[in-house]
Amino acid sequence: MTVPVDPHFASRVRESFGRQKAMALIGASLGLVAPGAVEIALPFRDDLTQQKGFLHGGIIGMIADTACGYAAFSLMPAGCSLVTVEYKINILAPATSALLARGEVVKAGRTLTVTRAEVYAQDRTHVATMQQTLMMLAGRPDHPE
Amino acid sequence: MTVPVDPHFASRVRESFGRQKAMALIGASLGLVAPGAVEIALPFRDDLTQQKGFLHGGIIGMIADTACGYAAFSLMPAGCSLVTVEYKINILAPATSALLARGEVVKAGRTLTVTRAEVYAQDRTHVATMQQTLMMLAGRPDHPE
Amino acid sequence: MTVPVDPHFASRVRESFGRQKAMALIGASLGLVAPGAVEIALPFRDDLTQQKGFLHGGIIGMIADTACGYAAFSLMPAGCSLVTVEYKINILAPATSALLARGEVVKAGRTLTVTRAEVYAQDRTHVATMQQTLMMLAGRPDHPE
Amino acid sequence: MTVPVDPHFASRVRESFGRQKAMALIGASLGLVAPGAVEIALPFRDDLTQQKGFLHGGIIGMIADTACGYAAFSLMPAGCSLVTVEYKINILAPATSALLARGEVVKAGRTLTVTRAEVYAQDRTHVATMQQTLMMLAGRPDHPE
Repeated sequence: MTVPVDPHFASRVRESFGRQKAMALIGASLGLVAPGAVEIALPFRDDLTQQKGFLHGGIIGMIADTACGYAAFSLMPAGCSLVTVEYKINILAPATSALLARGEVVKAGRTLTVTRAEVYAQDRTHVATMQQTLMMLAGRPDHPE
Repeated sequence: MTVPVDPHFASRVRESFGRQKAMALIGASLGLVAPGAVEIALPFRDDLTQQKGFLHGGIIGMIADTACGYAAFSLMPAGCSLVTVEYKINILAPATSALLARGEVVKAGRTLTVTRAEVYAQDRTHVATMQQTLMMLAGRPDHPE
Repeated sequence: MTVPVDPHFASRVRESFGRQKAMALIGASLGLVAPGAVEIALPFRDDLTQQKGFLHGGIIGMIADTACGYAAFSLMPAGCSLVTVEYKINILAPATSALLARGEVVKAGRTLTVTRAEVYAQDRTHVATMQQTLMMLAGRPDHPE
Repeated sequence: MTVPVDPHFASRVRESFGRQKAMALIGASLGLVAPGAVEIALPFRDDLTQQKGFLHGGIIGMIADTACGYAAFSLMPAGCSLVTVEYKINILAPATSALLARGEVVKAGRTLTVTRAEVYAQDRTHVATMQQTLMMLAGRPDHPE
């Protein structure tokens, strides 16, 4: 198991997630927060759908991106922040139920961290898989500057 | 200029976009609809932000993904639908204003279409760039089945 | 464990790999061939390096792409072929030794298959991670047409 | 037109490319070297092909990756070096002739640079498109250390 640099990583992650108004907008909530692994749950809601009635692929991307970001953030020292450099997501199946996105750190580097997320439906259908790159901003707080 | 197979492509795109409840949720609106090129505008709203007060990277992905998808859809025959296979987005700058995403078709194949989107802020800052793959579902309508 | 459609999948994979002249050029060889998982070994050779003396990132991409492709091919029926739609690779560490790339199927669909590869150095350094999409060409043989 | 920081950018790019033994192995040669844009030519050779007789997708990735990397390198100050963080490539058509890859800088940041490449066949078929991220290593030379 990965040992986090900051013993208060979980409260730091939860506090930061709580300030993500976009997560509140879509009804996403934080589940597991472990060192290098974070889960985000999303309900199925009609106002999150695209033209065929499935959850919008961009919404799936939002929760996967965020789960990855906090997985990376959990391993970082206090007092720094992160930016998403890029992510790539494959949509594997249409999403017609609540989802769970699990983000995990693949490699935590000094400057860059690479992560991955898997998104599953309630019936365990594998809905999406993401590969993501983040950059740590040392000494720049995780708040509006 | 690309010649669309369906002369009514623009109304087909606008009608389909109008059924995307996720786009209504985030306040995105359709601008230009040309053969193989579609623009989507997003206002800056507080409820679309992440923990540092910037527009959420996943929201940027949503409008780029959708602009790309409708760029592809504009070149398709009536009576079919599309699914996003995958997309990859680089976030180039934090987004602190309204955005415009322009999606364009790079290659329209028989089964697969490859697209690209550029996202700009109001001051012309280049905020993001996306590369995306879609698959046409021939004979399957663009409605809930 | 995934059950392959074609019981002769392993010989089909090995025969096809044997016709890849680009793999011979770089000295890559096929290791494990299991249903949905294929490994490719690459020696460290001076003529595979870039300007700093590391294995070229594109060479790493070649073996990961090929391992993914044959992982997908192992699950397909005889008499069809595959094309790579796209791949995305993160280089996690400079490669200064022989490598092993392991490709695995994430989702085998009717038309599209999504795969992943991990590339490791001899000292178990995680060198690269890839996410890839392939398309099956039903009824088109895996030979020059 | 982008103004390069280093007036000797072109000779610096050509000298570095000349040390890429992997480029010599596949017969790739450097064409245009402009500030933020670099072209690489590849002959069609039988020993670069995959099992169906097309140029190997990984070889296409190699020249696109390298064209992108030198496009970024052309805008950097002397005395630093670059690493590829990640790239994503869509193969748009099978390659059955000599190729030309053109890499261009999309955004040159302080630490990260985002680039893009287009690969064309001799008959102007659009063969591939790439989106790539690189990281500058300030003060670390572009030579074996």
